[in-house]
Amino acid sequence: MPELKEDERLDYLLAEELRIIQSPTVFSFSLDAVLLARFASVPKTRGSIIDLCSGNGVIPLLMSAKTSAPITGVEIQERLCDMAVRSVQYNKLNDQIKIVNGDLKNAPELLGMEKHTLITCNPPYFLTPSDGELNMNEYVAIARHEIKCTLEDCIRSSSRLLKQGGKAAFVHRPGRLLDILTLMRKYRVEPKRLRFVYPKSGKEANTVLVEGIKDGAPDLKILMPLYVYDEKGEYTEEVRTLLYGDESPFLRR
Amino acid sequence: MPELKEDERLDYLLAEELRIIQSPTVFSFSLDAVLLARFASVPKTRGSIIDLCSGNGVIPLLMSAKTSAPITGVEIQERLCDMAVRSVQYNKLNDQIKIVNGDLKNAPELLGMEKHTLITCNPPYFLTPSDGELNMNEYVAIARHEIKCTLEDCIRSSSRLLKQGGKAAFVHRPGRLLDILTLMRKYRVEPKRLRFVYPKSGKEANTVLVEGIKDGAPDLKILMPLYVYDEKGEYTEEVRTLLYGDESPFLRR
Repeated sequence: MPELKEDERLDYLLAEELRIIQSPTVFSFSLDAVLLARFASVPKTRGSIIDLCSGNGVIPLLMSAKTSAPITGVEIQERLCDMAVRSVQYNKLNDQIKIVNGDLKNAPELLGMEKHTLITCNPPYFLTPSDGELNMNEYVAIARHEIKCTLEDCIRSSSRLLKQGGKAAFVHRPGRLLDILTLMRKYRVEPKRLRFVYPKSGKEANTVLVEGIKDGAPDLKILMPLYVYDEKGEYTEEVRTLLYGDESPFLRR
Repeated sequence: MPELKEDERLDYLLAEELRIIQSPTVFSFSLDAVLLARFASVPKTRGSIIDLCSGNGVIPLLMSAKTSAPITGVEIQERLCDMAVRSVQYNKLNDQIKIVNGDLKNAPELLGMEKHTLITCNPPYFLTPSDGELNMNEYVAIARHEIKCTLEDCIRSSSRLLKQGGKAAFVHRPGRLLDILTLMRKYRVEPKRLRFVYPKSGKEANTVLVEGIKDGAPDLKILMPLYVYDEKGEYTEEVRTLLYGDESPFLRR
């Protein structure tokens, strides 16, 4: 067992037979992080991967099962980095995954300009909270709100980290779709693949997955919709496969 | 019967019990035009509606069944206007629908600046054809390619025609999504409703419907997907209802 602090738990990352340290009060990964890790075009062997806003390292851990390329997670909150580092150690992935405690705005200088193959980023979704909302848990506030970085910071840093032809994948809310697409084009990460996530059939989308290519030609594809729940309120087969894998006994019901 | 020229036919607009003059060589309306007429937020009584790139007038004819507001169709090709005018006359809609033969770039001066409630536009989808493609039928070339107007012309004119709070609805291809959203925001028609049309389940989208509000606040909603064909290759129930109406005997099979 790794050292667990306060109310931390050691949870399963089921599809990958990995474990991850989480905490209900500090940070637990979301379905969106899993969807982004599955959506991104992860290179099998070559190149290098950076995950910005890495939280407890869920995206590097998930991607490590699909690639032998080195992965660096960048997270500004020391407490979350500490969880990520212990999860990487517990899974014996120290040779592949590095966790950096730092500001993503400095990541290009720190990790190398225009040299990486893939950037992933599950950024804070909400604008800076008003004073009335600021009494929430600080860990959660920073992970959810644009307190330490804006969407533009995330996309600018992603672009500066990426080599030509490299890819950057983001997840966000539909209300910011226009901002994210505009900023991607502004920073030369041309949007190429867009996928909308719907909570269930007949509802509006509540999540957007988008991937762009540094200096790519304009040619955006809208992939098939992803539905999270079926009519019975259970995960759809696609989401169960993304979460638990093709071979999982959780899929056989 | 109206006067029919060359290979023109008098086709049914089924849901509305209207008839429309079409020609396989000059112009026939597309499913996209029907989807746009159904997607747009048509006011029931008040205001005024302009349809740009009106072709043979299919969108004004379809919308006339949903509103008592006056509708003006603007079409640059005289031959297509002539078909539209005869269809309007045949359906006895002269009091509600006017067809104007002119360039949409002059429409704001001609029809009034910043005074209209709804603009619809099914623009040419493709960039100017290369010389090798220019030997296609001229009517079809102008309707399909940005020969007489660009996407930016359509959006600029729409914005100038619209009063504050008025709406503009467009249909286009996913490859131009980023352009259309960026141009809408540039011309103060903030995108509010976006719906993707998929040929069938499991395929990429091939059509985009988008509506914006003049000087609206940013808050984009991604509506549920629209599927055209089911697994058997037949129109889905939703598309049959859009085409033939709720009460149509064509729906009972």
